[in-house]
Parts: sequence; structure tokens; C-alpha cells
Amino acid sequence: MKISVLNIGNELLKGSTANTNLLYMGQELLKLGIPPILQMSVNDDPKDMKEAISYLENRSDVIISTGGLGPTTDDITVQVFAEYFGFKLYTDESVIKHIQTIMGNDKLLSVHNRKQAIVPEGSTILENRNGTAPGLSFTAKGKLVFLLPGPPSELVPLFNERVVPSISHNLKEKVFFESLYTVGIAESELQRIVSESIPVHEKLYIAYRAEPGGCELTFSSTDKNLVSLSSAKMYSLIGKSLLSSGCKNIAEEIVNRLSERKLTLSLAESCTGGIISSRITDIPGASKVFEGAITAYSYEIKTKALNVKESTLADHGAVSSQCAIEMAEGCVKLFETDIALSVTGIAGPDGGTPEKPVGTVFIAIKFKDKIIVKDYLIKGDRSRVRIRSCAFALNMLRDLIIE
Amino acid sequence: MKISVLNIGNELLKGSTANTNLLYMGQELLKLGIPPILQMSVNDDPKDMKEAISYLENRSDVIISTGGLGPTTDDITVQVFAEYFGFKLYTDESVIKHIQTIMGNDKLLSVHNRKQAIVPEGSTILENRNGTAPGLSFTAKGKLVFLLPGPPSELVPLFNERVVPSISHNLKEKVFFESLYTVGIAESELQRIVSESIPVHEKLYIAYRAEPGGCELTFSSTDKNLVSLSSAKMYSLIGKSLLSSGCKNIAEEIVNRLSERKLTLSLAESCTGGIISSRITDIPGASKVFEGAITAYSYEIKTKALNVKESTLADHGAVSSQCAIEMAEGCVKLFETDIALSVTGIAGPDGGTPEKPVGTVFIAIKFKDKIIVKDYLIKGDRSRVRIRSCAFALNMLRDLIIE
Repeated sequence: MKISVLNIGNELLKGSTANTNLLYMGQELLKLGIPPILQMSVNDDPKDMKEAISYLENRSDVIISTGGLGPTTDDITVQVFAEYFGFKLYTDESVIKHIQTIMGNDKLLSVHNRKQAIVPEGSTILENRNGTAPGLSFTAKGKLVFLLPGPPSELVPLFNERVVPSISHNLKEKVFFESLYTVGIAESELQRIVSESIPVHEKLYIAYRAEPGGCELTFSSTDKNLVSLSSAKMYSLIGKSLLSSGCKNIAEEIVNRLSERKLTLSLAESCTGGIISSRITDIPGASKVFEGAITAYSYEIKTKALNVKESTLADHGAVSSQCAIEMAEGCVKLFETDIALSVTGIAGPDGGTPEKPVGTVFIAIKFKDKIIVKDYLIKGDRSRVRIRSCAFALNMLRDLIIE
Repeated sequence: MKISVLNIGNELLKGSTANTNLLYMGQELLKLGIPPILQMSVNDDPKDMKEAISYLENRSDVIISTGGLGPTTDDITVQVFAEYFGFKLYTDESVIKHIQTIMGNDKLLSVHNRKQAIVPEGSTILENRNGTAPGLSFTAKGKLVFLLPGPPSELVPLFNERVVPSISHNLKEKVFFESLYTVGIAESELQRIVSESIPVHEKLYIAYRAEPGGCELTFSSTDKNLVSLSSAKMYSLIGKSLLSSGCKNIAEEIVNRLSERKLTLSLAESCTGGIISSRITDIPGASKVFEGAITAYSYEIKTKALNVKESTLADHGAVSSQCAIEMAEGCVKLFETDIALSVTGIAGPDGGTPEKPVGTVFIAIKFKDKIIVKDYLIKGDRSRVRIRSCAFALNMLRDLIIE
């Protein structure tokens, strides 16, 4: 089965947004052993779109289009595909109802909103729980076509829940896959380990996806045994660096492990400014183990809320192991938790000194009578320093909890 | 002038790497008023590549290709382009010297390294100071063709220093553009306003891009006057809903405005769990106005740190306007700021009731003697409820500050 991707919208071509949808879909399709063979980005222009559809239709069995399903007049994906494949359009009442629910039942739907309910006859409506535009799928000229909304928050669930099962169902040979999530191993190091320990096999696909602080490693094959042997080999080699089965991200594993061990957590963030807290609270059920967090951005709140000593700030500065330790200790007292994690650092672009350059970060964890503190020097811009700090902090926390 | 981009290499299609080269080149070309009209990604396969070159050649004046210039046998970009356009190849001694310098003069060049010095006759060599593969440019069949290396660290300087000047030199007409960033207006509503107030003009191009809580609206035209008149019209109509010139996101505008007015801010987050804090601290210089935030996830910390009354929690629950108000009041006291914003809600998937379903959110702001509170019902999953809550909160805050 050959799959092609058509990304519609000038925001990709004029550099307003990276094509994260292709990245995501490529990874997910690779797990099925069928990454896209071809991808195009075109503007919302009927002629450009039809020429691209024709090009892709001649070279693939499945076309996945993204974007151009919005309410505005420049969103013409449905009309153009319907014209190209010769489908009539109609207004679907179930979509109208869905739009009404998403918009709020008290709102009057405009002609623009109603436009999103105009769909090709015979198409399957893929309900979009995060937006007004429905996803659509249909078969035409022997090709399977999916029209998906552009915003990743809308595309990702639709792709997972509707496109992947549909494509899997149409696969002649079932492809098995297993994804392992590593923490604290760089992608190049992981590749080295894999290449040294997993024999090359024409039926085995290996895919990597780097994330801040870890990697997703996927084995896929039509031979189930090959997949499970490869995974087992990795568990035997780097088991401690792999998230528990079923966990896709480290925050989820932390919440699960804390819950199992009936431990509570709080956070005191300075340079990360709420990122770690948002990662933890992103996990459903976090409230069972997570009492809360404080972003202690100023000197005043560090001393007032976390009891950091003024002498510590004066003698060592807010970016110091001493301050990190006192922040963690104060955090345990403030939130009355078993564990507290603190982060203080210089995210930049300003604030660096020769002794403490931008990227200097201290992370402390207080766990019952024990306190540990580590220092890091993270290269890169403000955003990278903050994101890497969060990754290091979560890795430290996980190491402590799984001990 | 029509520009197209051909990205060569399976890493883009199998989701190993995001297409940041397209993102970067799109942004730079947009500044010249000529974003790419078309982009394709193909595998390193001669047939796929030649078909793509043919497609792009028929639709554009300039083809920029990236990738496939490496030393290994799967890197075939130069050979394929030379075959397609009928150029002979030769080994360029200046490139051999350059490779020798990059590799280290003591190293013996392998046949793989020497392969990178094989270039089309008549092409211009674009010296790549960050790698061994030279960039190349040539004119063929009236088209201007650039072959650039894939790694961004190599592509970016070559693109800036060689491709942009060459394209600028060939431009007949410059295109002007202006992007406006709206807050608190849905894309469909913005489209209605634009269509009612900006006359359709064949030389004026209007683009929309939706973001959580706002939109990017871009006018572009070869007629500079048309762009500035359209922007001015929007400022006169919905000026209050447009971010100040130079601000691309609402958090940045909030930090700037607070700084101008010498006001300080703190936050008390419940369901958003640190997202708003991380948005604010993402802005360089936030520490001038931002004292900190508390993620008050549990009942206990709401009462202890923010002085929310136990009777409020018992009578109205933590998700109530009363609780939001008390959180904001407590937050002003804890952080000693001029302004405090609080958010409490049910992000789901659990915790909803018939009276307060998942997505019920209360946002309060305390600003000196004034306190305002609003309630929202947000549809969607946990992630959407949290992100939309953050967008609504930032919009409320901005409205108050710019008053």
C-alpha cells in the first residue's frame, strides 16, 4: 500500500508553521511499516490543489490531506476534492449539531460556520471532538482519501482513532509494532546500542523519534516474533532507561509510580516557570498525587513562601545549589508533600555571568530525609534551556521514584 | 517569480525529522515577498526524484532542492539533477581542496569523500563552510536551480549568503506584506469582518491562520499602499483586538504593557496547572513584572496558601466563581502584586457533574480594588480545555491592562 500526503495551506509555504502533521503521521505510519512515499505542500488554490491531487492519485493508493477545512473562504479543500472526484455536496445535519455543540448552543451559527457542514455525498464523517471541522474519508477511483483538519490538536486524535485503524484494516499483511520510550539516552547513543545489538533484518523496521530528554524507539514487522525479540533484547540491555509498558511519557510514569507508592509531590520552579507543573497536570488523575507547585520567580517570594534564607541569596545567589536545596525544603513544608522538586537557573538571554553563564541550572529533590542536588550547563536559547531543564528534572525525579 | 522546494530524503517522510529547512526558507522568502508556491518531499529514488523535478520545473522559475548531497551511496541528488537536465559531471579540484580542509589535511580522502567533488559542468559552486558537500547552482531550460545540503547548520548560511542574494537580483517586482495578530476573535468572525470591510482586489492576497485564542491575518500585495491601507482599516475597526505592532503573541504584549505601566503580576492556577505561568515566563524579561505563580491543585493548598475559605469549598466547590475570586485575592496577598489572575475548572476526563460538566472554568482577576470573574464552558478533551482556558485567561488579562 502506497500512501501520500497533501498538506494544504500557505502557512506551511510561507514559514508560519512547521509541518508537524507530516512528522507525526510519518512516525505513526512507519509503525505500520508504510511511511508515506511522497508529500506535497500547496497553497489553497483550486488549480494547484487539483494538479497535486492528480499527481498523488497516479502514484499512491491512499491520499491523506491536511488543512483547508476551516470556516473561512480560503478553506476550499472539501469543494476541490469533491469537484476532482465528481462528488455532490450536501449539508450534513449531524455536523451542524456538532458545530453547534462546540460553538456553544446559545450561539447563532454564521454562514461561515455552516459551511463546515457541507460534505461530499457518500463520505464518512470523522467527528472532530476538538474543533468544528469534521474529518472526512471516502473511496474514489479505487483510492482511499482522508481529509483532515490542519490544527495538530484536531488532527492527532482523528488520525489515531480513525485513519490508522482504517489503513490497518486495508493492509494485506498485518504489521506488528512495539514502541519503547527511553529516558536519559541521546538518539545517537540509542542508535549505536540498537545497531550493535539488533541484527539487521529485511522484515524489521526500526524508527526513532527524539524528544527532549528521551526517545521513542519503534520496532515494526509483519513477523510478530521479530518485534517481541527485539523489544526483549532492549529491555535486557537498557531496561532501567525504558518507561514502564503502557506509559508514553515520563510525566505519566511519574504520576503512576507515585500513585502506586502513595507518595505526594510538589514543585518549586524558577527558570522553568511552570513547565514542569503543566507537564504533571497534563496527566489525567494527577490530582491524586500532586498537591501543587509554586513558580517562585522573584527573590521576595523565594524567601516569603519557600523560606529561602536571605543570606543564601546574598552569599550564593538565587541560582545556586544552596538555593535549590532550600527551595525544595521550603516546598515540602508549604505543600506538606512527601517529595518536592525545585529548579533554579539562568534561562537567558540576559542574566549570565562568566561564573554562571546562561544555561546554568540547579535541580534539587527532597524525598523524606534525603536531599539530592545536581547542576547542569545547558547550551542553547531560552526556550531550549527551559525545556531541557524540565526534561532533566523529570528524569531525576523518575530515577528517585523507581529506585 | 515562482519558487518551488524539493526536499530529498526519507527522514522527512518517515517522521525522523521535521522539515525545518522549509520553515526557514519560507520565512526568508516571504520577506522578499515570494514564498514558495509548492513543495515536495521524495525519497532518494531516481525515478521519484525525476518525476518531482519535472513537476516542479513545469510550474516554477526557481527550484531549490535540499538533501542528498552526502558522501554515501544513497545520496544521488547531483547525479539525478545532472541526468535530468543533461549536464556532464566532472571532479572539481577546488571542492577536493575544500573537503580536504574540512576533513583535516592529514586525512586521506576516501572514494566517498571524493564523490562530493563531482559536480555538473557549468554550475556555480557555493562553498559550504560547515560541511564537505558544496551547494550548487545552475541555470537550465530557463530555470534557476539550487542544490543545497540537508543539515540546517549547512543550509542556513548557504541560503542566506548565496541563494537570497541571487534570487533578489533576479526579482522583477517586490511583494509587500503585513501580519496582524488578533486576540479574542474567532477565525470565522474575523473573516466576516474582513470580507465586509476590505474590498476584494485582484492584487491583494489575504491569509488567515488560527491559533488558540486568536488569529494571524496577513495582507500581501505588490502594491505597498494596498497592504498599508488594509492594515490601517483593520486597526480602525478592531484595533483593540489587535496586538501592538511588533508583538507576535499575547504573553509578550502583556509583559510589555505591564512593564510600561510598572505593574506586577502573579497567578493562581488550578486546572491550567502552570500553563499560564510557563507562557508568561517564556517571554525574556518577564521577571521585571512577574513575581510568580502557584499551582494550587489540592483543597489544602488553596486554603493554606491562598486563604480560600473552607466554607467556600464546602458550599460552592473548588470550581466556582467564589473560589476563583478568593484565589485571586489570596494570590495578590501572597505575592504582593498589583494584579493577580486565577483559574479554576474541570479539565476532565473525570470530575464532571450534570451542573458542572467537564470544561466548566472560572477565571478571576484582582486589579487593585477591582475584581472581575467570568465563567466559560469549553468543549473538547483535557488538553483543549487547558489550552483554551489559558487563552481566555490571557485575553481577559490583556483587556484589563490595555483599558
